[in-house]
Amino acid sequence: MIEKKNLVITIGRQYGSGGRIVGKALAEELGIHFYDEEILSITSEQSAVGEVFFRLADEKAGSNLLYKIVSGLKPQLGKPSTDADIVKPENLFRFQSQVIKELASEESCIIAGRCGDYILGREKEEFPGLVKIFVYADTETLIKRTMEVDKIDEKEATKRVKKINRERKEYYRYYTGGNWEDWNNYDLIINTSSIDLEQTAKLIKDYIKLRGIEL
Amino acid sequence: MIEKKNLVITIGRQYGSGGRIVGKALAEELGIHFYDEEILSITSEQSAVGEVFFRLADEKAGSNLLYKIVSGLKPQLGKPSTDADIVKPENLFRFQSQVIKELASEESCIIAGRCGDYILGREKEEFPGLVKIFVYADTETLIKRTMEVDKIDEKEATKRVKKINRERKEYYRYYTGGNWEDWNNYDLIINTSSIDLEQTAKLIKDYIKLRGIEL
Repeated sequence: MIEKKNLVITIGRQYGSGGRIVGKALAEELGIHFYDEEILSITSEQSAVGEVFFRLADEKAGSNLLYKIVSGLKPQLGKPSTDADIVKPENLFRFQSQVIKELASEESCIIAGRCGDYILGREKEEFPGLVKIFVYADTETLIKRTMEVDKIDEKEATKRVKKINRERKEYYRYYTGGNWEDWNNYDLIINTSSIDLEQTAKLIKDYIKLRGIEL
Repeated sequence: MIEKKNLVITIGRQYGSGGRIVGKALAEELGIHFYDEEILSITSEQSAVGEVFFRLADEKAGSNLLYKIVSGLKPQLGKPSTDADIVKPENLFRFQSQVIKELASEESCIIAGRCGDYILGREKEEFPGLVKIFVYADTETLIKRTMEVDKIDEKEATKRVKKINRERKEYYRYYTGGNWEDWNNYDLIINTSSIDLEQTAKLIKDYIKLRGIEL
């Protein structure tokens, strides 16, 4: 099915670890798209309520391929529906998985979260250029980064780090049946308490080079 | 206490992951000592039964510093004793921890296993050049490597991988109270199912460079 060997980096990340910043910077440097959870959520949620085409049209400049994929998907998934089944989380997840697989088949890209490691890793023969990264940090660092990035106080940051990371863990468990923190899901697991985000991006680049994957 | 910033790499590793081979190769390349669990066990166990000096004298060529440290330790730890307390595992562990800390203070080195990450990580101000690596692989890879390295069949390798990794986990739990597989114990966690051992050594070198630690 897929001839070319796209570089596809999935980045699992604890909230506050800086994974999103790392992914974005790396994507810019490599000149590839960065798909984060927001865009994928929109794709998924809106596909069910019918607003996807408008939303995606707005973002055409950056996401032409995503627009093409979403609009080309099978009607029962890609088009608005009043069918009760289509808004079930399982269905949204299947839709989103399809989008992730299509993106990974079509172009080199970085996909943050959304169980990308699981979705693509299960069919690894199809994605020989898949690199599965997880970025984490100790609680102190997670809270400190959240305070800085979200511009909130320590109490609120502590709450947010705890809540969102619990949600991510539950989300992963729910859709994959596996443990978000099981290191067998990943190729490389990086502690951003010990190095800064620029160094983290550099390390991922070094790793890609070692794997012999060309852009 | 310690003025100079030694590079001290601790390598936690699943049995069959190749961590020992990686550590040894890296030590050779960097021109520093590699202390594996065998030498540390000997130091520890023999110190209690009184054979340490003979054993270490035999290994002088490679381990002068280790010899110096062991022979210079406090009598109740470093010297033969018939006291029942001294052969207790807790005492052996304390002795061994002391050896690890002295080694890390004195020279750049690589220490495999033996809860090195925990022992040195707890006093991280003392060891600013500490890099805590964990090397793992999926079960299939662990078994395959064990078959090759230990020259045994699949059934025996499967048994050995399962048994030794369970023991290492229990050992870690017993002496640190923590979980061997808790990624907060480490700076970088590398899956050697995805890259070979030479690439793993190279990645650790890249990481050290990124951390700005000089030999």
